[in-house]
Amino acid sequence: MNKEIITKQQRGRPKKNLEETEKNRLSLIFSGVSLLTQKGFEATGLDEVTKKAGLPKGSFYAYYDSKELFGLALIDAYDDFFAKMLDRSYLNEARTPLERINDFIMEARTNMVRHNFDRGCLIGNLGQEITVLPTIFRQKIVDVLCKWQKKTEVCLLKAQTNGEISPNINCAVKAKLFWIGWEGAILRAKLECEPGPIDVFKDDFEAGLKK
Amino acid sequence: MNKEIITKQQRGRPKKNLEETEKNRLSLIFSGVSLLTQKGFEATGLDEVTKKAGLPKGSFYAYYDSKELFGLALIDAYDDFFAKMLDRSYLNEARTPLERINDFIMEARTNMVRHNFDRGCLIGNLGQEITVLPTIFRQKIVDVLCKWQKKTEVCLLKAQTNGEISPNINCAVKAKLFWIGWEGAILRAKLECEPGPIDVFKDDFEAGLKK
Repeated sequence: MNKEIITKQQRGRPKKNLEETEKNRLSLIFSGVSLLTQKGFEATGLDEVTKKAGLPKGSFYAYYDSKELFGLALIDAYDDFFAKMLDRSYLNEARTPLERINDFIMEARTNMVRHNFDRGCLIGNLGQEITVLPTIFRQKIVDVLCKWQKKTEVCLLKAQTNGEISPNINCAVKAKLFWIGWEGAILRAKLECEPGPIDVFKDDFEAGLKK
Repeated sequence: MNKEIITKQQRGRPKKNLEETEKNRLSLIFSGVSLLTQKGFEATGLDEVTKKAGLPKGSFYAYYDSKELFGLALIDAYDDFFAKMLDRSYLNEARTPLERINDFIMEARTNMVRHNFDRGCLIGNLGQEITVLPTIFRQKIVDVLCKWQKKTEVCLLKAQTNGEISPNINCAVKAKLFWIGWEGAILRAKLECEPGPIDVFKDDFEAGLKK
C-alpha cells in the first residue's frame, strides 16, 4: 500500500516541496468551494477549478486522485470552516445561549450581504443535486448537517436550563427545524439578493421558542 | 417579424404535422423537468434531454431556439403543474382553510415518497444555482414563488376569518415563511430519503398558527 502511494507520488506529482504542494492544494479547495457554492458539483469542471486556483490546466490530478475525492475534501473543508463559525458564537460565554444563536445568524447574514448573495451553502447546494452525486456523498452531507444540528441542540438545551426558552420545547426537534428553515432561508435570500428571508426565518424561529 | 418566423420554421423544423410537434415538445418538457429536478440546469445536457424524451440526438433545436428558452418553458410548465396542485387543495370548499393547507402538504409528501425522494422542487433546484443561470431566470423564479406564496396567504386569510388561526398572525409573513421552510424541508427530505423533515416543518408551521 505504501509502495503504491510512493510510486504514484513519484510519477504523478510535480517535484515541488511539500509546502508548495499544500499551498496549491489549499488554493484548489478555495477555488472548489467558491465554484461549488455557486453552481454545484456536476456543473463545475476541473479545468475551471485549476484555472480559478491559478494552477496550470490539467494539473488537478497531481493533487487529487478523482473529482469524487476532491468533492469529499471540499465537504470536509467547508464543514471545518462552518463548524468553527458556529462554535465562535455557540461557545461564547460572554453571551446568553439564546443570544449566541442570534449572533450566529447575524454573522452569517452579514457574510451573505458582503458577498452580494452570490454564494449559498455548499451543503445545501450539494443536497439539491444529491440524486446524481457519488453515493458516498449522501451520508457525508447528512452527517455534517447532523453535526451542526447537534451544536444547535446543545445551545438550545443551555437556553432551556437558563430559563430563556420554554421548558416544553423539544430541543432536538427545534434544532432540526432550525437547519431545515436555515437552508430554505439561505436559498431564498440568494434568489432575491436581499436578507429579508433570513429575517423572516429568524423572527419566527425565535418566536417559536417562547411558546 | 412574421416573415422571419416562417422562414425559420421552414428551414429548421422537421416537416411533421403540428400535433406531432406538440407531442414531441411535451416529451421534451417532461424529460427536462425530470432531469432538472434531479441535477439542475447547468449540469443537464441537451442530448440527455432529447434521449430521455425518445427523440433523435441533435433534434433539440427543431423545438426550442436555445437552452435558455427551454429553461423558461420548463419553469412555466412546472409552475402550471404546481399551481394546479395548490389550487386543488386550497380551493377545496369541502375542507376548512387550515385543512386545505394540510392537504397540500400531505399530497406533496405522498408524491415524494412515491418517487423515492429522487426529485426535489424544480424552483428550489434552480434557486440553488441562480448565480450562474441566465439573468432572466432570477425574476421569473421569484415571481413563481411569490405567486404560490400569494395563494397560501389567501388561504391563511380565510383561516383567520374562520377563526381557525390566531387574529395576531401576519398572513403575508407566514406565507413567506411557509415557502422558505417548504423548500428547506423538501431539500432535507430528498437528502435523507425519508419524509421526517416535511413532518417536522409541518408540525412547527401549524403550531405557529395557533399563537
